[in-house]
Amino acid sequence: MESIKNYISEHKERFLNELIELLKMPSVSADTAFTQDVLDTAEAVKASLLNAGCDVVEICETDGYPIVYGEKIINAALPTILVYGHYDVQPADPINLWTSPPFEPVIKKTEKHPDGAIYARGACDDKGQMYMHVKALEFMVKTNQLPCNVKFMIEGEEEVGSSNLAVFVANNKEKLANDIILISDTGMIANDVPSITTGLRGLSYVEVEVTGPNRDLHSGLYGGAVANPINVLTKMIASLHDENNRITIPGFYDKVEELSKEERAEMAKAPFSLENYKNALAIEDIYGEKGYTTNERNSIRPTLDVNGIWGGYIGEGAKTVIASKAFAKISMRLVPNQDWKEITELFKTHFESIAPKGVTVVVKPHHGGQGYVTPINTIGYQAASKAYETTFGKKPIPQRSGGSIPIVALFEKELNSKTILMGFGLDSDAIHSPNEHFGVWNYLKGIETIPYFYKYFTEMNS
Amino acid sequence: MESIKNYISEHKERFLNELIELLKMPSVSADTAFTQDVLDTAEAVKASLLNAGCDVVEICETDGYPIVYGEKIINAALPTILVYGHYDVQPADPINLWTSPPFEPVIKKTEKHPDGAIYARGACDDKGQMYMHVKALEFMVKTNQLPCNVKFMIEGEEEVGSSNLAVFVANNKEKLANDIILISDTGMIANDVPSITTGLRGLSYVEVEVTGPNRDLHSGLYGGAVANPINVLTKMIASLHDENNRITIPGFYDKVEELSKEERAEMAKAPFSLENYKNALAIEDIYGEKGYTTNERNSIRPTLDVNGIWGGYIGEGAKTVIASKAFAKISMRLVPNQDWKEITELFKTHFESIAPKGVTVVVKPHHGGQGYVTPINTIGYQAASKAYETTFGKKPIPQRSGGSIPIVALFEKELNSKTILMGFGLDSDAIHSPNEHFGVWNYLKGIETIPYFYKYFTEMNS
Repeated sequence: MESIKNYISEHKERFLNELIELLKMPSVSADTAFTQDVLDTAEAVKASLLNAGCDVVEICETDGYPIVYGEKIINAALPTILVYGHYDVQPADPINLWTSPPFEPVIKKTEKHPDGAIYARGACDDKGQMYMHVKALEFMVKTNQLPCNVKFMIEGEEEVGSSNLAVFVANNKEKLANDIILISDTGMIANDVPSITTGLRGLSYVEVEVTGPNRDLHSGLYGGAVANPINVLTKMIASLHDENNRITIPGFYDKVEELSKEERAEMAKAPFSLENYKNALAIEDIYGEKGYTTNERNSIRPTLDVNGIWGGYIGEGAKTVIASKAFAKISMRLVPNQDWKEITELFKTHFESIAPKGVTVVVKPHHGGQGYVTPINTIGYQAASKAYETTFGKKPIPQRSGGSIPIVALFEKELNSKTILMGFGLDSDAIHSPNEHFGVWNYLKGIETIPYFYKYFTEMNS
Repeated sequence: MESIKNYISEHKERFLNELIELLKMPSVSADTAFTQDVLDTAEAVKASLLNAGCDVVEICETDGYPIVYGEKIINAALPTILVYGHYDVQPADPINLWTSPPFEPVIKKTEKHPDGAIYARGACDDKGQMYMHVKALEFMVKTNQLPCNVKFMIEGEEEVGSSNLAVFVANNKEKLANDIILISDTGMIANDVPSITTGLRGLSYVEVEVTGPNRDLHSGLYGGAVANPINVLTKMIASLHDENNRITIPGFYDKVEELSKEERAEMAKAPFSLENYKNALAIEDIYGEKGYTTNERNSIRPTLDVNGIWGGYIGEGAKTVIASKAFAKISMRLVPNQDWKEITELFKTHFESIAPKGVTVVVKPHHGGQGYVTPINTIGYQAASKAYETTFGKKPIPQRSGGSIPIVALFEKELNSKTILMGFGLDSDAIHSPNEHFGVWNYLKGIETIPYFYKYFTEMNS
């Protein structure tokens, strides 16, 4: 397996160029303007899996965007690894904040990435991290070192809730049968502090609409005499947090897993500099739920954030109007034991109940998913840990992440297998933001580490 | 003067068609995309004034859009009426709520307008009401019945704060010298309840910007740990009203004119049906400052309304982002004695002071103007009242309006003359909203009434 380093150094340029070609495809699943691009990207992923050595690759149709399924089965008696990833990306808005166009990838050197980083929407989330697995497979197949069976399931709707993936998984349990699921769609603490994500938050995403009068009104003639839907919406949203920044929805915290003092002390050992954190975001101070640290607030605690708000006149200049409607997109990050459907229902009931007379409120659930915690005493985790230790020269830290990959809980339920979250991105990679990027070093380090996981996982299973 | 009815009936079609041509021009002053259209509209107004019989018409350049000035001086010894109006219009957004395109005028019959109403942006505010004066002048000149001198000052920036008009007025006091200013840019209670506006609210319009982190963030990785500018903005805006819907800005009410019991009792005599009001807006209940009626809330009380709000992802689908910035456009309607510059300063100081650590706030004053109350014991008011009585068959009711024409207070200060607000629109005309319209009956009734004002005002002054 030593040859992986040489293989990478020999094929590095091609590995980068292939990823760059994939990143040029604007596969934005949330926006129907990009439908054809998303479909084209699925075809490109299929071609890459065939090139890398899969025996069979299929474009599996769903009610939404297709799922690319590929496999290389070398011996039914050997373990099977199922690699999950996604080929769709977040919308690139606001486009004007990108320093280079989101779908014209460029490599730029930065302080954190002295070897350069690829700037493009999807560079890290998840095309770059997904493609590490394709190139790792290529290495193992081309050098006859694939130690076990492998299956790929790469979907096109992760950024919009994976609703069709759930149906696909439920209907294809046999096809997807595996011993471990491997996902690279998370991050690690730093290039010199490798970590493996052991927990994910759940998610409930809703859109709310507040309607007041049946048409836009002149604010001079009606101002002060009718409920202004924007003012009302701000009051309703503001009331969702109390003075300690705790969420006020009745029952919201009922099932929240409370960590023990010992667990919190263990978490606090992860390296973290509040000064660096504030400097990196250019904020004067942090903000959040009273009684918890920053690392706790964004991992073991549930949250409620407005992701978008709009209403009234938002063009150039001034318009003295009272809008008929105001809207917001609101998401809640959930922790293990909180059920996203139950939380969505609690939100809906509460939000409707606090609407004053004079407006009507509609709460439209968007999508959601359960949180997940992976145990560290499994063969899967041990194999991953050993793989990192081999290539990074130090043991990775188990870490709870604040992000959500809603499908992970479903995999466990439907396929009865555990998931290992081997992420190689950094928090500073600006995923979901303008100027998303992925370190060249990180991309190649992922390709280097993955074959060791195959090796150790197969050995530990034998 | 009896001949006015015959003249209107003879030229009605042409009067409508000329207005329709003017309404086809999208003179949106707030949006630079329409710059050439605004300039073209000024030229069209100039041509219409020359056709109507003005001896001199000039396009007066300003630092913004030009002011159209016209005059017909028949005898320096006679009184001079200055007609003010505006040829610019509000933006037409949201376009999709219009039942016919905003700049393709059509005449439709409605319950309130059995003779039809012209549907177009600016139909009532203010092209239709301004053009009544042009056609009234045409009648008086063509039939040799103009009893006094007349000047027109039609501007193109009323909907964006009239800032260049103020400079123009200050620099042209001699040219604009007059005995009374006549404006039709307000409404009346109903077609069978004529009224004259005797009070206007002032205005302070600001835009606020809340900045949190230096870039958009992934809500999973940062949610709950940093101040979300949208959540913060909703909290800040929500806090601007207390539980009685009173504005919480310190000092805001200090100079508010409090009406006596008698004055309030007099106001309460104006016909008003709460049921009709609620039904017309399709709202279950009204909303506003405790202790005041609907008619008081939108006329003698100051207000604070959000006219627009935006931030984060507002496209199709979902994006789990914490936006770097959130924005709102906020306007305050002010009552006599409140100084708009002082109130703008109070707002700015207060809004900046309530920003939590972790965000920065910028308050950008947009424009504003003072409120105005016109006395009813003047020759101007009496002449207007008699003109209405002649054409409507009943005495008009003096009424305080909630709207603002910020320039009126300035006219009094700079030109030392009173303003008569002879409005012929209805509150239901949807000015500033989709489907703005102006009754054909109202348009023609305005043309009929205006010459009587000229007649009575000249007679009373002699």
